[in-house]
Amino acid sequence: MSTVSDPGISAANLPEVPLTVEGASVLHQIVRIRWAQWRSETPERRSAVIDEATGLLSGVESVDGGWTAMYSLLGHKGDLLFVHFRRSFEDLGNAEFQLARTALWDYMEPAYSYLSVVELGLYESTGKVYRGLAEEGIEPHSAEWNAKIEETLQRQRTAMAPRLYPDIPEGKFICFYPMNRRRGEHKNWYQLPMPERARQMQEHGMVGRRYAGSVKQIISGSIGFDDWEWGVDLFADDPLVFKKLIYEMRFDEVSAVYAEFGTFFVGVRRRATDLAELLQVG
Amino acid sequence: MSTVSDPGISAANLPEVPLTVEGASVLHQIVRIRWAQWRSETPERRSAVIDEATGLLSGVESVDGGWTAMYSLLGHKGDLLFVHFRRSFEDLGNAEFQLARTALWDYMEPAYSYLSVVELGLYESTGKVYRGLAEEGIEPHSAEWNAKIEETLQRQRTAMAPRLYPDIPEGKFICFYPMNRRRGEHKNWYQLPMPERARQMQEHGMVGRRYAGSVKQIISGSIGFDDWEWGVDLFADDPLVFKKLIYEMRFDEVSAVYAEFGTFFVGVRRRATDLAELLQVG
Amino acid sequence: MSTVSDPGISAANLPEVPLTVEGASVLHQIVRIRWAQWRSETPERRSAVIDEATGLLSGVESVDGGWTAMYSLLGHKGDLLFVHFRRSFEDLGNAEFQLARTALWDYMEPAYSYLSVVELGLYESTGKVYRGLAEEGIEPHSAEWNAKIEETLQRQRTAMAPRLYPDIPEGKFICFYPMNRRRGEHKNWYQLPMPERARQMQEHGMVGRRYAGSVKQIISGSIGFDDWEWGVDLFADDPLVFKKLIYEMRFDEVSAVYAEFGTFFVGVRRRATDLAELLQVG
Amino acid sequence: MSTVSDPGISAANLPEVPLTVEGASVLHQIVRIRWAQWRSETPERRSAVIDEATGLLSGVESVDGGWTAMYSLLGHKGDLLFVHFRRSFEDLGNAEFQLARTALWDYMEPAYSYLSVVELGLYESTGKVYRGLAEEGIEPHSAEWNAKIEETLQRQRTAMAPRLYPDIPEGKFICFYPMNRRRGEHKNWYQLPMPERARQMQEHGMVGRRYAGSVKQIISGSIGFDDWEWGVDLFADDPLVFKKLIYEMRFDEVSAVYAEFGTFFVGVRRRATDLAELLQVG
Amino acid sequence: MSTVSDPGISAANLPEVPLTVEGASVLHQIVRIRWAQWRSETPERRSAVIDEATGLLSGVESVDGGWTAMYSLLGHKGDLLFVHFRRSFEDLGNAEFQLARTALWDYMEPAYSYLSVVELGLYESTGKVYRGLAEEGIEPHSAEWNAKIEETLQRQRTAMAPRLYPDIPEGKFICFYPMNRRRGEHKNWYQLPMPERARQMQEHGMVGRRYAGSVKQIISGSIGFDDWEWGVDLFADDPLVFKKLIYEMRFDEVSAVYAEFGTFFVGVRRRATDLAELLQVG
Repeated sequence: MSTVSDPGISAANLPEVPLTVEGASVLHQIVRIRWAQWRSETPERRSAVIDEATGLLSGVESVDGGWTAMYSLLGHKGDLLFVHFRRSFEDLGNAEFQLARTALWDYMEPAYSYLSVVELGLYESTGKVYRGLAEEGIEPHSAEWNAKIEETLQRQRTAMAPRLYPDIPEGKFICFYPMNRRRGEHKNWYQLPMPERARQMQEHGMVGRRYAGSVKQIISGSIGFDDWEWGVDLFADDPLVFKKLIYEMRFDEVSAVYAEFGTFFVGVRRRATDLAELLQVG
Repeated sequence: MSTVSDPGISAANLPEVPLTVEGASVLHQIVRIRWAQWRSETPERRSAVIDEATGLLSGVESVDGGWTAMYSLLGHKGDLLFVHFRRSFEDLGNAEFQLARTALWDYMEPAYSYLSVVELGLYESTGKVYRGLAEEGIEPHSAEWNAKIEETLQRQRTAMAPRLYPDIPEGKFICFYPMNRRRGEHKNWYQLPMPERARQMQEHGMVGRRYAGSVKQIISGSIGFDDWEWGVDLFADDPLVFKKLIYEMRFDEVSAVYAEFGTFFVGVRRRATDLAELLQVG
Repeated sequence: MSTVSDPGISAANLPEVPLTVEGASVLHQIVRIRWAQWRSETPERRSAVIDEATGLLSGVESVDGGWTAMYSLLGHKGDLLFVHFRRSFEDLGNAEFQLARTALWDYMEPAYSYLSVVELGLYESTGKVYRGLAEEGIEPHSAEWNAKIEETLQRQRTAMAPRLYPDIPEGKFICFYPMNRRRGEHKNWYQLPMPERARQMQEHGMVGRRYAGSVKQIISGSIGFDDWEWGVDLFADDPLVFKKLIYEMRFDEVSAVYAEFGTFFVGVRRRATDLAELLQVG
Repeated sequence: MSTVSDPGISAANLPEVPLTVEGASVLHQIVRIRWAQWRSETPERRSAVIDEATGLLSGVESVDGGWTAMYSLLGHKGDLLFVHFRRSFEDLGNAEFQLARTALWDYMEPAYSYLSVVELGLYESTGKVYRGLAEEGIEPHSAEWNAKIEETLQRQRTAMAPRLYPDIPEGKFICFYPMNRRRGEHKNWYQLPMPERARQMQEHGMVGRRYAGSVKQIISGSIGFDDWEWGVDLFADDPLVFKKLIYEMRFDEVSAVYAEFGTFFVGVRRRATDLAELLQVG
Repeated sequence: MSTVSDPGISAANLPEVPLTVEGASVLHQIVRIRWAQWRSETPERRSAVIDEATGLLSGVESVDGGWTAMYSLLGHKGDLLFVHFRRSFEDLGNAEFQLARTALWDYMEPAYSYLSVVELGLYESTGKVYRGLAEEGIEPHSAEWNAKIEETLQRQRTAMAPRLYPDIPEGKFICFYPMNRRRGEHKNWYQLPMPERARQMQEHGMVGRRYAGSVKQIISGSIGFDDWEWGVDLFADDPLVFKKLIYEMRFDEVSAVYAEFGTFFVGVRRRATDLAELLQVG
């Protein structure tokens, strides 16, 4: 791929994939409540079911290496959204199975889910790192190159640990949606040169920064895990901010031309102890 | 993004996002009636169910900060459409949960929904405001700029309050559909310069104005809230007007080239007290 | 939109929307039979259900201002197709609710529907009328222009009344499908100039005319009513004619380039009194 | 469309639709078995159900003018595929209703179907015939032209009767899929001139001929009948041949550029008497 | 197709289809657990069901000519994934029916499946072989050519037998997804000349080789068998590797421009004896 005859690696041969660091494993679970079936139970049965589920959910609002947050969704796409952050996919699987084993699950119908890992894309430093290694004459993907890259990533992982393993974000409202970068026949994100992608991502980031005070954003990567390339979670106290932020970004080149969006889910944060109220009958 | 060396901001650097003001939070709920299950109940049970639901719906035909209107839909997409206008997303969530908790809901199957906020796009004044601030040498997104913009928006919100928080529109028929502006590989609304978008929107608006006497239109924005960018509600006494208006608009440049449409729902207005008749058996 | 400085309106400023006249309101309802549930009933119950439904359907094979025809469909898309022609959308709504209230409906599952109004597109005369009014110096959309146009439409409605409110067509077989005119990024029907659209529609019509003896066609418009722009009903005694006609038309420019098709439904005409045979068990 | 001033019809004005001859009416029915419901029945009931269905299916493995063949499908798309060849759509309708009326159908869930007629496209002779008639000065679509064309078709129908009304093909495996010819904005099959389409079809046919010994192919036309333009049935003793043949064809111009494929179904041939084994419990 | 006037076959006339060798027949089955129904059974019934299924699954973890492996999936797309490798499609059909006949299947709902055969594409040697035969003056598709090709393939099948009939791969995690090569109107894989396709595949393969130590990949071909052209299975102990590998590949020309992806499934390997734990209640 990149055979180099003289000292220094040609910039044209640098890898195109940006450096990323990954953190928490993330599962979004969206379910619908089977109201008719739920209402047909006796008050005693409903109480028991709520108690068991409340107990489980209270216990996982904070666990070693993560948390589970519950949201009540607006509209028909689902009634409840469970967002699980964990240390690993296995822990996610356990979180999912724990819920599936509750009696509550008899009254829930899975509607959607999304599997991803928290991801920080290092577009800003990637170019610098790649060019630096090239100037040192280190061949891409050589053992030395790999070691240097891993060293960089490890540094970033440490520095960014709080963003890679975030706490449950404040914010009364959540907005979740998956997205892709377009690979059209004419407009193809993956064929833009790295510096151009970095430029567009930086422009994009500047819009986000203007909203830093009113919205918290968590990006998770899902290439190889789910049907879109990234998941986006936004958290805010005023849901109008979701619209303003995303509308403004839509005029960025990277969104206007290269963003493809999946389904949008909007919900209100609930505590485990709100379950009884959410499932109250009559 | 916009570094300015001399007094005056270059027009080329003005923001591309048009100013908008927002009003009522809106939820469209479409449900199908489970006729077989409904018919299998005793007349007494059916009466009780209808009474409870009629009571609830009568109570929300007008509430503080909004209203709920009911429509019976034509065709298989759904039997009933509930349109909720409220002050906030939380109030919408409550409206939704109130319905879900009625016994009526055991005989209803959610088919679709749409979450949005009433939106007035200020394309006409946006350019003027942006250019005015530029001429005053006020940098976009600076604190001063933000304050001036907010001042403008606040003025508009006050002036347009009746349109931002409208009453239930007169009109026997409703036509609801969601839509996007195209972001194709070659035709991309979000890459047109602001003045061109403003021109097309104005042309579009002129068609609408010719129908002002026979149709009422409410636009709501749903970027960040639902799977399309806008929801459109039309209200008229003669449903043929829906076809005429939308067909004529289809030849506008902004619709011909840039409009993408979701599903269309057409219904007839019903009062809460019509529920008994709508659910009458045999 | 069209500012005219000298007598005579520039052709370039004529409206692009063709004149149309509308007739009967149309609802296609497609349902599947729940065989297992149906078979589980007693013969007495089945008889009673059939009698009630046959009575209703017999009564609406011809009603004031319309009719309901029943077809048994081939394939899994549905078992029965009810085609309702009525004077208004309200009458359609009543027709739909009448069926929904029969006991038969407990054994039917809605699979699809289509809402439209019979439409005759007057491409041939539109250009003539528009140019005539322009030559008289009458400004498009002025009160005078509107009155003249309405006069023309009214004349056409009277002349074409039998086609706008047609009887149930003869023909053992029905073929129904919805369709759009393409609005692609490069090929966009709604951006072709009126004379070019008129030319293509005329070429298209010539093919249809060759089949006039063996197939009857009813076009209904559904812009603003349903998810496609038009519905097409073909009626013939030999279903092969559907294939020949549509295949031949596919090479017309307007179909080859600008036609997008939805789902095709093919059925056999049945009388209300055939219901017992159609639902016969064992 | 084609106004001719001197003797002889310009080649440019010849019809673009290729001649075809049609044979058997074809319905593919794909169903899923409701295992839980089936298993919940008593052995006696199951025996009775199987006996009734086996009797019916045995009786239609060969009927006047056609046959019904059963295949067990691989994967979740369906468990059983019934392929019905009949003389007419009415006979197909009867075949479908006969099955629907069996007790077996209570344990079957319709998953897909496809309606078509056996079709032989006469691309090779179409050009010759059209040019011949043009040289004789016979105007396309004139009465004389129609008569001559019908004469040609009748000759072909007789000569090709065994291919138009084929027996159940040998071959342990079936592969069925529907397909379209592309009508893209840039690549549009229906806008290629007849000679070019004929050339591509001939190239395509040459690949098929190389597989003549190991695979049998039946093409059926479904324009106007179902949601794709053609259905393709392949029959072979070695299913690998399906992959080899279709992969090799994919590099033909007509497939590479103009083929759009629907769902693929692969199954194993079963006799009516295999039903007991297929539905065996435990 | 290839008429040759002098000794030697023009390179331009060489076949475009690459040589492939095929191995095991493969079926992926994805099912959802019907928890409510499962939980409603008595402990005794559940034990019996688990015992029967565990027995069956234990018996097929290794069978003559293949194996069945079980994975628990993350997210709502399915709960369990069964991957069957067998000698033939008939054996696959048997494996599928064996499962369908267990009592366990009453509590399982089929969600997806994928039918394919292990395939090794021989892009590297195809060109060499084709050119070699051309230089010998052997006409493509002649009897001699076919014999020589079959000889080559047979040699490859023997040499690659362990990859064509692989054991259950080590690796705690599986990632499965189907994919196509794009046949767009402008970017069409099947119209690239063989040497260009070979070049892109080689570049693609170099990325894969860098991950050889941490991920095992099995490609299976499904043209003619299922709705996508290939299935991809990745196996790894660290699921992050799936994301890294696929993200890096996305920048390869063959993936960036020509890859279209279906649904992604991610699961954790389970033994037959884990079934009791997976289905544990409460």
